[in-house]
Amino acid sequence: MEQKIDFRSDTVTKPTLGMLDAMLSAKVGDDVYGEDETVIALEAKLANIFHMEAGLFCPSGTMTNQIAIKCFTQPMDEVICDQTAHVYRYEGGGIAYNSMASVRLLNGERGILTPELIEPEINADDVHYPKTNLVVLENTVNKGGGKCYHLDQIEATHNLCAIKGLKLHLDGARIFNALVATGDKAAAYGHYFDGISVCLSKGLGAPVGSVLLGSSSMIKQARRIRKVLGGGMRQAGFLAAAGIYALDHHVDRLAEDHLHAKALAHALAQTDYVAQVTPVETNIVLFEVANKFSADEVVRALGRKGILCNATSAKTVRLVTHLDISPAMIDQAIEVIDTLDV
Amino acid sequence: MEQKIDFRSDTVTKPTLGMLDAMLSAKVGDDVYGEDETVIALEAKLANIFHMEAGLFCPSGTMTNQIAIKCFTQPMDEVICDQTAHVYRYEGGGIAYNSMASVRLLNGERGILTPELIEPEINADDVHYPKTNLVVLENTVNKGGGKCYHLDQIEATHNLCAIKGLKLHLDGARIFNALVATGDKAAAYGHYFDGISVCLSKGLGAPVGSVLLGSSSMIKQARRIRKVLGGGMRQAGFLAAAGIYALDHHVDRLAEDHLHAKALAHALAQTDYVAQVTPVETNIVLFEVANKFSADEVVRALGRKGILCNATSAKTVRLVTHLDISPAMIDQAIEVIDTLDV
Amino acid sequence: MEQKIDFRSDTVTKPTLGMLDAMLSAKVGDDVYGEDETVIALEAKLANIFHMEAGLFCPSGTMTNQIAIKCFTQPMDEVICDQTAHVYRYEGGGIAYNSMASVRLLNGERGILTPELIEPEINADDVHYPKTNLVVLENTVNKGGGKCYHLDQIEATHNLCAIKGLKLHLDGARIFNALVATGDKAAAYGHYFDGISVCLSKGLGAPVGSVLLGSSSMIKQARRIRKVLGGGMRQAGFLAAAGIYALDHHVDRLAEDHLHAKALAHALAQTDYVAQVTPVETNIVLFEVANKFSADEVVRALGRKGILCNATSAKTVRLVTHLDISPAMIDQAIEVIDTLDV
Amino acid sequence: MEQKIDFRSDTVTKPTLGMLDAMLSAKVGDDVYGEDETVIALEAKLANIFHMEAGLFCPSGTMTNQIAIKCFTQPMDEVICDQTAHVYRYEGGGIAYNSMASVRLLNGERGILTPELIEPEINADDVHYPKTNLVVLENTVNKGGGKCYHLDQIEATHNLCAIKGLKLHLDGARIFNALVATGDKAAAYGHYFDGISVCLSKGLGAPVGSVLLGSSSMIKQARRIRKVLGGGMRQAGFLAAAGIYALDHHVDRLAEDHLHAKALAHALAQTDYVAQVTPVETNIVLFEVANKFSADEVVRALGRKGILCNATSAKTVRLVTHLDISPAMIDQAIEVIDTLDV
Repeated sequence: MEQKIDFRSDTVTKPTLGMLDAMLSAKVGDDVYGEDETVIALEAKLANIFHMEAGLFCPSGTMTNQIAIKCFTQPMDEVICDQTAHVYRYEGGGIAYNSMASVRLLNGERGILTPELIEPEINADDVHYPKTNLVVLENTVNKGGGKCYHLDQIEATHNLCAIKGLKLHLDGARIFNALVATGDKAAAYGHYFDGISVCLSKGLGAPVGSVLLGSSSMIKQARRIRKVLGGGMRQAGFLAAAGIYALDHHVDRLAEDHLHAKALAHALAQTDYVAQVTPVETNIVLFEVANKFSADEVVRALGRKGILCNATSAKTVRLVTHLDISPAMIDQAIEVIDTLDV
Repeated sequence: MEQKIDFRSDTVTKPTLGMLDAMLSAKVGDDVYGEDETVIALEAKLANIFHMEAGLFCPSGTMTNQIAIKCFTQPMDEVICDQTAHVYRYEGGGIAYNSMASVRLLNGERGILTPELIEPEINADDVHYPKTNLVVLENTVNKGGGKCYHLDQIEATHNLCAIKGLKLHLDGARIFNALVATGDKAAAYGHYFDGISVCLSKGLGAPVGSVLLGSSSMIKQARRIRKVLGGGMRQAGFLAAAGIYALDHHVDRLAEDHLHAKALAHALAQTDYVAQVTPVETNIVLFEVANKFSADEVVRALGRKGILCNATSAKTVRLVTHLDISPAMIDQAIEVIDTLDV
Repeated sequence: MEQKIDFRSDTVTKPTLGMLDAMLSAKVGDDVYGEDETVIALEAKLANIFHMEAGLFCPSGTMTNQIAIKCFTQPMDEVICDQTAHVYRYEGGGIAYNSMASVRLLNGERGILTPELIEPEINADDVHYPKTNLVVLENTVNKGGGKCYHLDQIEATHNLCAIKGLKLHLDGARIFNALVATGDKAAAYGHYFDGISVCLSKGLGAPVGSVLLGSSSMIKQARRIRKVLGGGMRQAGFLAAAGIYALDHHVDRLAEDHLHAKALAHALAQTDYVAQVTPVETNIVLFEVANKFSADEVVRALGRKGILCNATSAKTVRLVTHLDISPAMIDQAIEVIDTLDV
Repeated sequence: MEQKIDFRSDTVTKPTLGMLDAMLSAKVGDDVYGEDETVIALEAKLANIFHMEAGLFCPSGTMTNQIAIKCFTQPMDEVICDQTAHVYRYEGGGIAYNSMASVRLLNGERGILTPELIEPEINADDVHYPKTNLVVLENTVNKGGGKCYHLDQIEATHNLCAIKGLKLHLDGARIFNALVATGDKAAAYGHYFDGISVCLSKGLGAPVGSVLLGSSSMIKQARRIRKVLGGGMRQAGFLAAAGIYALDHHVDRLAEDHLHAKALAHALAQTDYVAQVTPVETNIVLFEVANKFSADEVVRALGRKGILCNATSAKTVRLVTHLDISPAMIDQAIEVIDTLDV
């Protein structure tokens, strides 16, 4: 039986033997009592990497994002983000449900927000308008095809927020992809953001979890919110151990995923069923199908040849490279791409 | 001292002597016990006009809109409306706060939504997306410069909603302006919408209040929500009496406001400080200022000559005609407009 | 036809001719633009009486209470109040809905809370518990049969709250009954409470409305919440004028209502269908029916003789005296009470 | 160094070698894509045991309880539970925050609710009251010292709920303790309850997780809520495997924990620092300290001798037996108890 090659998302990775071994030998305790030393070590390790005061391990990136938004807003506040932002589009309406906050949606180039886009959308102090209180950036931008921010863009938005009294949160579901691609330092991010979500279960290859970073007082509040949402776990150290292993072993290798993605993009650009490929910066390949095809048709045709990927709109298809994709699989996928009859 | 002519909004009107007399002689009771016969009469009168089952008198149009949205959604649902909709933009973030619902914002021509715009934005049944449950139209469209819907546009949207299982609510803050301008029948609206907000304190000239119309079961639920929001009033019949008087005396005369608005628009279009006037359909005049001016400068210049109006963006100005604007005031305003030195 | 005598509540009063005249001649404006001078005057007058910084006119006492609770809590906070408190029992679940706050319910003697009852119920700083942030007192206590607080009880609770960092709100639906009965000064209340709700539509006899008092910054926030709840009214001065008239003419006369209540209580205590009458302090008479009767039976028997009142539980009945109850009505009611055959 | 014996809670257990082995060899997948076969197997296994249609694996018992309450209520509804219920007291105010629902708190004997207690507290259909919609039972009752319901009590409450149109949820954090102690069948519970939370990380000894059981449509809705709360995990099969192992190996042995608890209770009852021991039914020992001591003093004295336990009020202390407590540890603890000098 032909083995499927799964480019649907970098969330599908399974732990390596080394990671499983780290999980098996983890020292655990009851994290609700603050006694799981592996969880504590993971939180400290990431806080240290990003030069932030404290961290909080949660079951998902949706939870770290939603908790951050709750920490940084009150009901009747407004959040500024891109119209394609994961926090707005793919978290089940959580901004309204968990934080009772409104959204102001911008239309950034490939999802990249700038001070020029943000500033005119900050509400005046008037009872008719919700109070603008938070800006959320996403890096890399998922719907922007893995687009990265330049550090000076982040600095500029940080400066605007500081002047206007707004908080700035980073949805860093794929922040290590951005760091590897740009060469920027994690510590700089800690300086510019009030909160950062770092996912362990995407490109880093851990099975479960995300860490929220922020100030000590913010993380104290986040811990309360995590409890009320039901995200407090008991012997969570097994999961945290996988996260620590991933930080030690799976960061530098993201460069390989990026090369893989570029190779796929190059192949796709030569075909007649692809109209245009978004320039690849990290591990996401986004392409528009040719006029006579629908995205679903192309996805199905690839699927019949063992290549799994997702349509992200009526005319666009996404492939994501990750830890479980080997060079041999890329060769095989390119062969399929080259010869595909949609 | 020169008398100011107030075009800022049609909410600024004061009761006429006839209306005051109706208020003074109203029979009142405790409406929380369901014993205020004037409130009951107003609710029944409007339900009858729009061929809907029941009505509920509330202190404001914001409350009738917000209650309708709460009736028609549950937390984690999504509301489709125009990006300029009053319910989204000018009700303090109430959709998120009162209903914990998300918004999907469309970009209608002058705020007019069509099935073609709406249908692609209805979410698939997937845990990542909020559940689309409600479409809100606004007629006339405030930010669209008093633009009216055609009845066939409404019917088409109604049909889409029926097929897709969505509720359809009308923010009818200025619905009588639309009815007078188009000649459409109120009863048709009752057929197409699940809920309608009708404001009494705008063009109709009553001091306070709005009535929510819907099915009997929806209005029963709305009564509970009104109580929890604190909108239940005791001897509200004084206010309801003004509403009844307005429906009997101030509907047909809206045509006069519309003529006034067109006359202002005509005058403005001739000046060099106005770049473009949005075609006038009802009682709102919206114009873009010429390149070298800001909206604030034009508003201030008019203000110095006794003409009060509002900037609605950096380059646009709005004037609204209403019951307290006489033909003589229009003449005077046009004279100012013609001769203004910004 | 026999005239009914309505003791169901002091909310049922209708404006006197003097009050109607005051309403008719009120100077009004658009209060959403802050231009209704009568509303402004009422808010200032009450703030001055209670020595508080600012006031906000709202359509109901439920709204002033609910806004205060929202101002003084955040989601996941906890409110301490008596288990019979109006804010918990009779406002439709508003503490949970409007403020997403929990309740800790105490069992005060006739609803009177003391520091001894409150202190053990303040939660420790632990993620398992909501954060205690607010204490709400009610004066007079409705379900306690119009019981008044002594000022030293309030001072003691104020002191506890100050030490523990809790806010203290007064549901003053009948605060003027308490002030008249005890001789305490309104200004002292302004010192002890962070927020006070004052109802105009109960014993004071105005048709609609309640004023929330607090600091300037709290009232600024309250104004925003009022907008989102839909409580902002346009030409509300008509209602505010009735409130001003009530404060000028209907406060001292509350003593008469209290005498009336005591006379009714005295008569009831002599009958065989009454087991016990709660000692009367203000305008509420609460009695327990004799063993062989239900409260409903007694209410119906009184109703057949033209005396309207409410059962407040299976065995208790409440009568409330007010502005529309004349000495002659009290005489007539006592005659019915004396001779009633249940 | 003396080994501490940890009776603080049954949440502190660490996986056995057998359980770790089961975790290591689990087949996992992306559960957000519905592709983790171990998670699916756990959900099906528990649904089958309780004869319910479907199950949902979540990170904590707080999350399964909170999701159930959200499924069974709407904002402005009311939940009936005991005043000591975990869902009300120890879940951070989640009923108000997650569901915007009010609570009606009963005072059950050792936390046991009966139809006689519940029925009078169901609200009438009146806008002043939240709508009663849900009853929550807890079995065993944590704050009732591990007290079990009799099945006929549950049946009677089920019947009342059916007549009144209320949903019935079971917080089954320790449901297997109850089943082992009473000999009742799990399938009967599936018949009587609309939703059941089953914890895997307490007496059953799994590191993380809880499963919510209910109808297929309810679990579909629960899956959406889990997503919005951030409880969707990727390769959660590692944790689910521990749960399956626990169900296969750790249920019958709960009888041993119960014997251990009774032995501790017997010893405590003989001492002079204990005033009274609540009769032990399962794995929780609750005792009141003698007059001259505080609970904290007794806890500290035991702690100095290596026995860890918690004060649950100023005068009560709780010990919980579990998988990591061996017979030898019980002997050692009894020796300490017998000879303790507080």
